[in-house]
Amino acid sequence: MYIESLEKLINSFRKLPGVGYKTAQRYAYSILNSSKENAKEFADNIINAKENIKFCAECGNFSETEICDNCLKKNKDIICVVKEPKDVVAMEKVKSFDGVFHVLHGTISPLENRGPNDIRIKELLQRVQKYNTKEVIMATNPDVEGDATAMYISRLLEPLNVKVTRLAQGVSMGSELEFADEITLTRALESRIKI
Amino acid sequence: MYIESLEKLINSFRKLPGVGYKTAQRYAYSILNSSKENAKEFADNIINAKENIKFCAECGNFSETEICDNCLKKNKDIICVVKEPKDVVAMEKVKSFDGVFHVLHGTISPLENRGPNDIRIKELLQRVQKYNTKEVIMATNPDVEGDATAMYISRLLEPLNVKVTRLAQGVSMGSELEFADEITLTRALESRIKI
Repeated sequence: MYIESLEKLINSFRKLPGVGYKTAQRYAYSILNSSKENAKEFADNIINAKENIKFCAECGNFSETEICDNCLKKNKDIICVVKEPKDVVAMEKVKSFDGVFHVLHGTISPLENRGPNDIRIKELLQRVQKYNTKEVIMATNPDVEGDATAMYISRLLEPLNVKVTRLAQGVSMGSELEFADEITLTRALESRIKI
Repeated sequence: MYIESLEKLINSFRKLPGVGYKTAQRYAYSILNSSKENAKEFADNIINAKENIKFCAECGNFSETEICDNCLKKNKDIICVVKEPKDVVAMEKVKSFDGVFHVLHGTISPLENRGPNDIRIKELLQRVQKYNTKEVIMATNPDVEGDATAMYISRLLEPLNVKVTRLAQGVSMGSELEFADEITLTRALESRIKI
């Protein structure tokens, strides 16, 4: 059977990350089996999200307003720098952090041809000066690119008289030493604390 | 961060089968990162699929027309009975089959309170009489409900002077005997063929 509108819907689902033909087909069938209202709502939610959500002019996170709630209300003494909007969601789980975020929208990556001017570093420097920020926490991913980007930015921040910190690296809670990699163990050992 | 249109989009994705919060979030972000045209197309495809696709009045499969292409063109001497539209897709892979399908839209299931009148059995009997069909192949799933439904329907077809067959049950191609279950092996042994 070849049904044009079904194939088109399956193809749309296939564009989602990690979705192959079988899964896309399952999703498409579930739409056909759901109510007309549900399908309409789904379509509306896609359009609305795409139309209403922009990037906050300050922190670069998703926002429905010019400046997001976080940037309007929170303390700007501490700025936590992350790679992507989803990292903000992760960091927000830490209840004790009460500062604002800064989303870089990428890390410096010569391999992918992305230099310092392609990510939001200039905006970070401006914010630090504008709000006389006391501390910048580099919370980029603990990988080569994340480390290099954090290092690069910390050099630029040096003349601005701001404390620059980096998330501690070590063994994760609940993990097993047996399966920890060498670099993680090395860093955990180097940063060991007195108990 | 709480962004209403983002949460609504995530909730829509969560209604898809097997999608949890994390996956829905990933899908939503991919929509936000895609072009406006792509998002619009996705939304349109949902609406169009839901509006254009009905069930074929003959076979019960998805169709954009009153009677589907299969039912218009194919030989009605053999009808292959399946549980759901996706089973039609599976059976169509068998190039040697050239008959039409009949989608029951479920199997008889006392547990789920679904009796013979809740699935398309009456329509099957009508088709067999109308087209003077020679053979009905029961291709419901090889499980308790599928077997019971096939058995039930074959009794109803008896007086209509039509040959009723069932897909053979045995070990799957490429599988390992070691992991085959007892019932499968029993049936494979019972239906053994001379080589």
